[in-house]
Amino acid sequence: MTASPALPLDPAELPGRPCAVAAALQVLGEKWALLAVRELFYGNHRFDRIARNTGAPRDRLTVRLRALEEAGVVERRPYQERPVRHEYHLTEAGLELAPVIQALLQWGDRWAVVTPPVVLHHHADRPDEHPLDVAWVCRTCGEEVAPGSQRLEVRSPGWDRSGPLEPGAQRRG
Amino acid sequence: MTASPALPLDPAELPGRPCAVAAALQVLGEKWALLAVRELFYGNHRFDRIARNTGAPRDRLTVRLRALEEAGVVERRPYQERPVRHEYHLTEAGLELAPVIQALLQWGDRWAVVTPPVVLHHHADRPDEHPLDVAWVCRTCGEEVAPGSQRLEVRSPGWDRSGPLEPGAQRRG
Repeated sequence: MTASPALPLDPAELPGRPCAVAAALQVLGEKWALLAVRELFYGNHRFDRIARNTGAPRDRLTVRLRALEEAGVVERRPYQERPVRHEYHLTEAGLELAPVIQALLQWGDRWAVVTPPVVLHHHADRPDEHPLDVAWVCRTCGEEVAPGSQRLEVRSPGWDRSGPLEPGAQRRG
Repeated sequence: MTASPALPLDPAELPGRPCAVAAALQVLGEKWALLAVRELFYGNHRFDRIARNTGAPRDRLTVRLRALEEAGVVERRPYQERPVRHEYHLTEAGLELAPVIQALLQWGDRWAVVTPPVVLHHHADRPDEHPLDVAWVCRTCGEEVAPGSQRLEVRSPGWDRSGPLEPGAQRRG
């Protein structure tokens, strides 16, 4: 595996479509990377604990954490001086991955596990705490986003290298 | 890489925390799997086109598509009889991955690319079409979900094997 580059990338340098999903997955597109991010959201900042709670082989976890650090998603902070030891923390970019983890959790609860192992509660600090049930809503019109109601406007040349953008618009390759 | 199992899984059999994120990533936790799903959302259903638009090596893409099929995320449908050829389509489980791709796209636009290569427009079929700007809203209280406002209720034994669930709740390992 090659080292992940620092973000942001020029998407024209990616294989396939120059696409922000692909650029994101250059850094995140591996199970251990996303599970390490999950552990940081859960408050586990030390290598040993991240390794134990993800089940990641230590050598691969080391590589992924270094890549996440180079990409600006996590940062190391010293917590001990002699010898120097570091903890991992999410940067601003890392904290903004919460919707990605949330979307994976919601999908996993519905499709990937027999019974949801955890339930997320919203507003833990208020008397009206309740189970979290996330909807994806468009800020402009206030409506829930349904699959198929979207149109892609391509701004980068080379994006549509060989195929259509929408179901039904298929043409022969 | 071992073959991905059919979903749903018993999360107690996973390494690390028995967690729905981990279960989801048993199938999706690899760049080519998620990029293949992206292409299916964009209406590209044939192997050649998925390979070209993802940049995935053909042998690895074959493995990932087979795993996605075994997990019930994609299905093959014949489009030609002699010789038999198949297209790939998202199942109901696959279509419900839209928020995962959407969250990766929104994060990638902000953090992983220099300039967003595409802009998503909402309600392409209506006169009030507008750029999509997705918020993550709790259906119960109608408020946007902010990081840190959540509490995890653990229902599966073994979930908290070695660490805290929330920042600040750290205990020594």
